[in-house]
Amino acid sequence: MLEKTTRMNYLYDFYQSLLTPKQSSYMSLYYLDDFSLGEIAEEYGVSRQAVYDNIKRTEAMLEEYEEKLLLFHKFKERCKMIEHMKELLKTDSPHAEISELLEELEKLD
Amino acid sequence: MLEKTTRMNYLYDFYQSLLTPKQSSYMSLYYLDDFSLGEIAEEYGVSRQAVYDNIKRTEAMLEEYEEKLLLFHKFKERCKMIEHMKELLKTDSPHAEISELLEELEKLD
Repeated sequence: MLEKTTRMNYLYDFYQSLLTPKQSSYMSLYYLDDFSLGEIAEEYGVSRQAVYDNIKRTEAMLEEYEEKLLLFHKFKERCKMIEHMKELLKTDSPHAEISELLEELEKLD
Repeated sequence: MLEKTTRMNYLYDFYQSLLTPKQSSYMSLYYLDDFSLGEIAEEYGVSRQAVYDNIKRTEAMLEEYEEKLLLFHKFKERCKMIEHMKELLKTDSPHAEISELLEELEKLD
């Protein structure tokens, strides 16, 4: 569950601009502010089931966007390369290897 | 016009997975393969006006996606940083400056 929460937080971060304001509010309250479904339902004067359905649909949309655009996947790849370059910078002669990583980074877009 | 074509090529590249198959075909023929509106219309057995309207709507959609997700903008920023790092790697002591650029690169996502 924690892994799913982390993933949803990232996907929400990358794709929230593509959601409706209501989808965005429910996701933000549920995943970022840790509200329960019941609390969100009360806040909006709707049923718990309505909030649940909306959030499930939004989660599926975020996964679909990720399948199409791979922003989270590429972000993780870039982070790995950047970390690797930082490590290389601490060594004595990092030039050739960093150059290679920069080439890879360019191709990732 | 050339500048617009280049921009549309990039936006199409970044967001084509979000288009319908028809939108994608028209855009690809018009912008990548340099077909005229008339030629696309003939190919699909529709009016020139229908192709024109579809392409205009798709262009607007691509610009909307870019406004929301900024993938092309971030891509250009990353390219600039990577070029800068490549230049720095050719100099004698690039470490500190490259480290700074890597930090900036991380924040861009």
